[in-house]
Amino acid sequence: MAESTRLVDLVQERIDLFLEEREPVVAAISPDLDHFIDFSRYFLSGGKRFRALFCYWGWEAVRDDGNEFDLMPTPLPTAELSTVVHAAAALEVFHAAALVHDDIMDNSDTRRGAPAAHKRFEADHVAGAWVGSATGFGESAALLLGDLLLGWSDELFDDAVQSVDDRAAGRAARAEFVHMRTEVTLGQYLDILEEASWLRHDESELLSRAHRVIVYKSAKYSIEAPLAIGAALGGGSAAQLTALREFGLPLGIAYQLRDDLLGVFGDPSVTGKPAGDDLREGKRTVLIALARPLLPGNVRRVLDDLLGDASLDAEQILMLQTAIRESGAIEQVERIISRNVGLAKEAIADAPLSAVARRQLLELADTVSRRVA
Amino acid sequence: MAESTRLVDLVQERIDLFLEEREPVVAAISPDLDHFIDFSRYFLSGGKRFRALFCYWGWEAVRDDGNEFDLMPTPLPTAELSTVVHAAAALEVFHAAALVHDDIMDNSDTRRGAPAAHKRFEADHVAGAWVGSATGFGESAALLLGDLLLGWSDELFDDAVQSVDDRAAGRAARAEFVHMRTEVTLGQYLDILEEASWLRHDESELLSRAHRVIVYKSAKYSIEAPLAIGAALGGGSAAQLTALREFGLPLGIAYQLRDDLLGVFGDPSVTGKPAGDDLREGKRTVLIALARPLLPGNVRRVLDDLLGDASLDAEQILMLQTAIRESGAIEQVERIISRNVGLAKEAIADAPLSAVARRQLLELADTVSRRVA
Repeated sequence: MAESTRLVDLVQERIDLFLEEREPVVAAISPDLDHFIDFSRYFLSGGKRFRALFCYWGWEAVRDDGNEFDLMPTPLPTAELSTVVHAAAALEVFHAAALVHDDIMDNSDTRRGAPAAHKRFEADHVAGAWVGSATGFGESAALLLGDLLLGWSDELFDDAVQSVDDRAAGRAARAEFVHMRTEVTLGQYLDILEEASWLRHDESELLSRAHRVIVYKSAKYSIEAPLAIGAALGGGSAAQLTALREFGLPLGIAYQLRDDLLGVFGDPSVTGKPAGDDLREGKRTVLIALARPLLPGNVRRVLDDLLGDASLDAEQILMLQTAIRESGAIEQVERIISRNVGLAKEAIADAPLSAVARRQLLELADTVSRRVA
Repeated sequence: MAESTRLVDLVQERIDLFLEEREPVVAAISPDLDHFIDFSRYFLSGGKRFRALFCYWGWEAVRDDGNEFDLMPTPLPTAELSTVVHAAAALEVFHAAALVHDDIMDNSDTRRGAPAAHKRFEADHVAGAWVGSATGFGESAALLLGDLLLGWSDELFDDAVQSVDDRAAGRAARAEFVHMRTEVTLGQYLDILEEASWLRHDESELLSRAHRVIVYKSAKYSIEAPLAIGAALGGGSAAQLTALREFGLPLGIAYQLRDDLLGVFGDPSVTGKPAGDDLREGKRTVLIALARPLLPGNVRRVLDDLLGDASLDAEQILMLQTAIRESGAIEQVERIISRNVGLAKEAIADAPLSAVARRQLLELADTVSRRVA
């Protein structure tokens, strides 16, 4: 995946350059704003860059018609490459904004094993012995940091659209981008709505409701949309975009189901989050929806009682993990993951996409849905 | 101001149409999302529309070279008018997003005398007897509503940019728009920073720090930037943009100073906010910075103690109002307002702007800086 590695480096360079350009604008307003650049830089470094990669391979996939004997990509014209790098960087900046806001909503104190943005601003308040609520200050400042990054992601995306010669392709890519933005924001709302209101819904609806959250909050956003944005930017045909979407949506579902398993059973040293974090947050995942009807009544009542209790201790987490494991729900989730990865791979098996990109997409399908531990 | 009235109606029509177009997209995801459209419609109706008006008159101001005998605007070509209406609508949607987020940060429960967005979502939680914190749910949902509106404002602005024939004018307008977005977001941070950290700064800096907040959070955002966006979209010259900026910045300062006086002394039936709301919020305004050094030491200590205490009662509010009034700070603020309105008017007196627009801008200058009670 030398191309992928190179893309990740180019995206990081583009983000760094963007922040360098913004730094004097911000400093001119006030030296008190330096944390906005520092924290942006921190939250925009590293990460898995899956969205950037899917955007890039979506673009690459429509660059030729799928000659099976092209084993290496044709050399990339610099200007074209720069277009897709801008778009990929925009997706990563958008994602950083979403995470900053997400951590406020979830009361998540850590992100990748380090303090979340709102905790960093809160620490400024504590260190300065300022007046008022340090928590409130931290959350407000992080809300604004997220807003700033949302705006900046849009600027980067516009750079991509402006730099593409084919104006219709630029417009199509922009339409995909704004559609993604609306869908993921509404998907996040459905997520918090589910956490709050699940007890008021009929048992029989819970699985389909959890599935809907996955589709909008995660599957479309993390994989389908980045692929479609890249392909649209590359001037892909309707048939090419359809194949990429039919690959992206089930793969995105598999990706999120893997993440749900990690949220309950993941090793903190790998996930960067405390063990059983999703249990404390009370996420109403497909895993939970599958486990509930399989549990004995008394255990189910304990699960319903404890799920979403932020003060769960290690012993309670272990008990919930054991109950879910013994219900057999993990095996069900693994089967759904496998089925979706299979559907994804089938969707691009004979599609009119470049052979190099297809190979990379098949490899990425395994990477994003793979068992970690 | 028949033109202004007509513009306000056209902007409202454009916003209504935009929401109608979005409604099926949102409903297709889930009927649970209907409040996102309902609340958007509520927060996007009415209001003073100053930003839309300044955008429109900035555009109108560069449409001719300032013949003093043009007493009526030349008839508006429909396509051009549609461009500026899109941009004006985008500014109003952006503003609604900013207010939704602002009310979360300020813990303001009301907006225009009715519940703020986060209180509306909180009420859903209470009415549904959902689980978890109703306050937390309300704030998270409103955060997402604000994010959605930020994205939508950008879509509307892009419609404006795409519809303008002169591509350079479109790019210039977009540059003004994104610059405004960055500046106001950072200005809002400086505002909350000031509320939290003012006690740690030297007395001598407080006035200039309060002034800096006004410039970025309010003056540029509310008046200078809308004018510049409209003028850039109309293909205005550098001289025209400079004159409009030199009008907009001091007028924006006057506008905010008037708002600060209303925040402390305003009639709740006019402001739609509780009496003395800024005192409870602890806003470090120019008014407060001017009053403090004029107060006797013991009164100043009481002010420092009480300012920002959310539980202030009517008697305490009255005492603080009286102390500020007796300090003579109101007269100082009135003088600064007058001086800034004068500077604004001077800046466009001989500028190469259309005569009709100049007249309307002079009238708007009085409207936005006028004493209400």
